[in-house]
Amino acid sequence: MEQVPGSLGTSASFSLRLGQTVFSTASLLFMSLGVQFYSYTSFCYLVTVMGLVIPWSFTLALVDGYSVLVGCPLRQRGILVIVATGDWVLSLLLLAAACSTASAIDLLATLDGPYCPSKFCNRYQLSAVMAFLSWFLIAASSLFNLWLLPSL
Amino acid sequence: MEQVPGSLGTSASFSLRLGQTVFSTASLLFMSLGVQFYSYTSFCYLVTVMGLVIPWSFTLALVDGYSVLVGCPLRQRGILVIVATGDWVLSLLLLAAACSTASAIDLLATLDGPYCPSKFCNRYQLSAVMAFLSWFLIAASSLFNLWLLPSL
Repeated sequence: MEQVPGSLGTSASFSLRLGQTVFSTASLLFMSLGVQFYSYTSFCYLVTVMGLVIPWSFTLALVDGYSVLVGCPLRQRGILVIVATGDWVLSLLLLAAACSTASAIDLLATLDGPYCPSKFCNRYQLSAVMAFLSWFLIAASSLFNLWLLPSL
Repeated sequence: MEQVPGSLGTSASFSLRLGQTVFSTASLLFMSLGVQFYSYTSFCYLVTVMGLVIPWSFTLALVDGYSVLVGCPLRQRGILVIVATGDWVLSLLLLAAACSTASAIDLLATLDGPYCPSKFCNRYQLSAVMAFLSWFLIAASSLFNLWLLPSL
């Protein structure tokens, strides 16, 4: 059986999961430390999705770390199907959340009026950037696992 | 070699492509028949992405229709790689565009002021719904082709 770098149980996958956890947490903090995030649907949606992504990535980071330490990567078809599907669904949700947030921020900054004080706006922008980075990593994980799947 | 329904050159794929073309065109028309779409970044982005999706889906619908008529599905690895990659990239762009548009519409409808006259707002909403439907179909095409790929 071929060994795909980045698939479940390898050290590359461990790095990807760690990156996802870090970026998602950063995005959540940048968004929720601002006070007004619950006024806008997109921002609430981003926070909800981050609440799903962070535990998922963190758990899989633990699994990967354990696999690397023990030296025995997980190669059970059922588990890989669940992980690949979960990654795929979460990556779509995360892309949707990141784009909605970016679009809302852009609109708030364009409109005249007191909608986006520059202090909050910068935070929101950082949050959106972190969400995009996190999406990029989770999409990579998803692709690696999906690629390994038919060979099992 | 297994035959995956929905992959390039089958009649299911032809239906998917036709659906993509119809929904994308509808979304583009609903958006661009309103006059104000170029005032907002997200709406311009949606129109740009639709300008990529429509020719792509239409061309592949022609290819699929030809394959079904001739009775000889395309099974060359190189072509399938290009189609699967193109589908995947376009589905991500389309999801991003649909989410940005939906988020911008939601925000415009929430804010007080003359930002979203109800005549335009309904059109924009229909456009976003069509974009989501089109995304759903193009994601299905992408998955079917990706699934077939490792067996070639």
